[in-house]
Amino acid sequence: MASKIREALLSSLTAHKDEFVSGQELAYEASCTRTAIWKHIEELRRDGFTIESRRKKGYRLVGRSDLVTENDILLGLETEQLGRNIVFYQTLDSTQKIAHQLAQESAPEGTLVIAEEQKTGRGRMSRQWYSPPGTGIWMSLLLRPELPPQKAPQFTLITSVAIVQAIEEVCGLQVQIKWPNDLLIDGKKITGILTELQADSERIYSLIIGMGMNVNQKQADFPEELHEIATSLALAKGEPVSRAKLVQRVLFHIERYYKMYMDKGFEPIKLLWESYAVTIGKHITARTLHDSISGVALGITDEGVLLLEDKDGVVHPIYSADIEWL
Amino acid sequence: MASKIREALLSSLTAHKDEFVSGQELAYEASCTRTAIWKHIEELRRDGFTIESRRKKGYRLVGRSDLVTENDILLGLETEQLGRNIVFYQTLDSTQKIAHQLAQESAPEGTLVIAEEQKTGRGRMSRQWYSPPGTGIWMSLLLRPELPPQKAPQFTLITSVAIVQAIEEVCGLQVQIKWPNDLLIDGKKITGILTELQADSERIYSLIIGMGMNVNQKQADFPEELHEIATSLALAKGEPVSRAKLVQRVLFHIERYYKMYMDKGFEPIKLLWESYAVTIGKHITARTLHDSISGVALGITDEGVLLLEDKDGVVHPIYSADIEWL
Repeated sequence: MASKIREALLSSLTAHKDEFVSGQELAYEASCTRTAIWKHIEELRRDGFTIESRRKKGYRLVGRSDLVTENDILLGLETEQLGRNIVFYQTLDSTQKIAHQLAQESAPEGTLVIAEEQKTGRGRMSRQWYSPPGTGIWMSLLLRPELPPQKAPQFTLITSVAIVQAIEEVCGLQVQIKWPNDLLIDGKKITGILTELQADSERIYSLIIGMGMNVNQKQADFPEELHEIATSLALAKGEPVSRAKLVQRVLFHIERYYKMYMDKGFEPIKLLWESYAVTIGKHITARTLHDSISGVALGITDEGVLLLEDKDGVVHPIYSADIEWL
Repeated sequence: MASKIREALLSSLTAHKDEFVSGQELAYEASCTRTAIWKHIEELRRDGFTIESRRKKGYRLVGRSDLVTENDILLGLETEQLGRNIVFYQTLDSTQKIAHQLAQESAPEGTLVIAEEQKTGRGRMSRQWYSPPGTGIWMSLLLRPELPPQKAPQFTLITSVAIVQAIEEVCGLQVQIKWPNDLLIDGKKITGILTELQADSERIYSLIIGMGMNVNQKQADFPEELHEIATSLALAKGEPVSRAKLVQRVLFHIERYYKMYMDKGFEPIKLLWESYAVTIGKHITARTLHDSISGVALGITDEGVLLLEDKDGVVHPIYSADIEWL
């Protein structure tokens, strides 16, 4: 109930941006008392919104700091289901871990776990993901698609395409995809995706899509060993980026591609993905757990598997590897 | 340590079946004191072993009742890794649930959870699996194959083939496989398999293979509504079957086929599976969650997906369905 009021309140304030709105009108639009409005305004201020108030005139939304609390994300979120249930933490071990727990406690599809800081954020192969406070987007999205487990890896690709679109929209930056799960700007890592699942042989119980996005880090915010391999959107763009806005557009595009996928299958996503992929058509080396194969990356299969043609013309399906190219 | 002594003790007693073995010899072979031997003999008796003891002659293994405790399974187990770590419960909710917990607590590959009775045993699609005490085999096996999640459904088929072999060996009965996960004798259900996984897009973290086998039930042990659709090995064979022996052979054959699969790929397993499958080449109806497709079952793909050719010659990949045929 309280979150409904907050949402209505934020949407009224935004609709009248730069104008004062009376407490009475806000109360009417949120179907609550003026006392409740007053209480929620105080709460929003604590969450980083700057709201001016004047006697007899009412309230005016001036702006907000770059936060990713439930309020920041809900205000302006254009999805139907994704991100409608948000679990925000100032700091936690890992958003993946919490999302898995919520999945087992029957949390609804679209539940988003997001944190200002992760203590033990992780990426592929249990590798550490550097997630310092206040600068990036560290979040995990719970989906429950009615699909067999073979289809799960496609969701890393769906998410990649959605994030490329969101970054282009919000920052005007061109992003490239490196199979299987990295997004790059000028060859440096800007986003990593980790799709995990719980399933039986026939159907997925829950799919947890973890996303780590470097947004407002300055060069000095990265540890020395990451300088050559990671960058942030703010560094690439030359100015700060609204994290909440980016989360909203990422969720919007994931929802859109997810629906497209369920309606029309993987083909349209696959074509989009291949158009952004940096490795397709190139001579690459794929280092797997036990092996290393070199050849030309032909494309991906309908299940998100990379196809690599070696010098003898043999095509190898690559399920998991680190990719290198010149 | 204690379980090492027990294992050595059981193997000495079995090696000298029908003969007396002195406490001193047993102590020597198990590298422990005679007092430890005496203590372990008492424990084995409590676990259902009949062990005769005579002054100056020692101990003689006469036999054992049909139990599936750790001891019963270890005595005569011919695997290298599967079932070498056994967690036995007299009664529990579901062996799957415990196995998932153990998987997250880093239990080793091959860990087996087995119970005399399950209160809330379940099969595919969260359907109930009737698991009364003392008559069947209710167990879950933990594997950690270095494979991508797309391969997980193959393990239901590997397990099916292993169980068919084990039943043929121990009971001399012919079993048929009904895609995806049922084993039948005379059209009635004898075994169900539920393969569950935790994974990311690239690799399986843990694979839990749940097996429910109807072994020594009498007709009256089945509830009325199951009379037409389920039967037991004892009913089919006309005499009781050793559950421990069956568990041993099931584990042995799963290990064998698992190795074969990792060495040579899915092809040999697939051929075996198709030779036992009752539906291949037949006209069947596949009822999926939202749909129903009729046609001829052509076979399975390399990922365990059923291929169904409808009357217009269109081939449908079936990932999940209930199969019916005339």
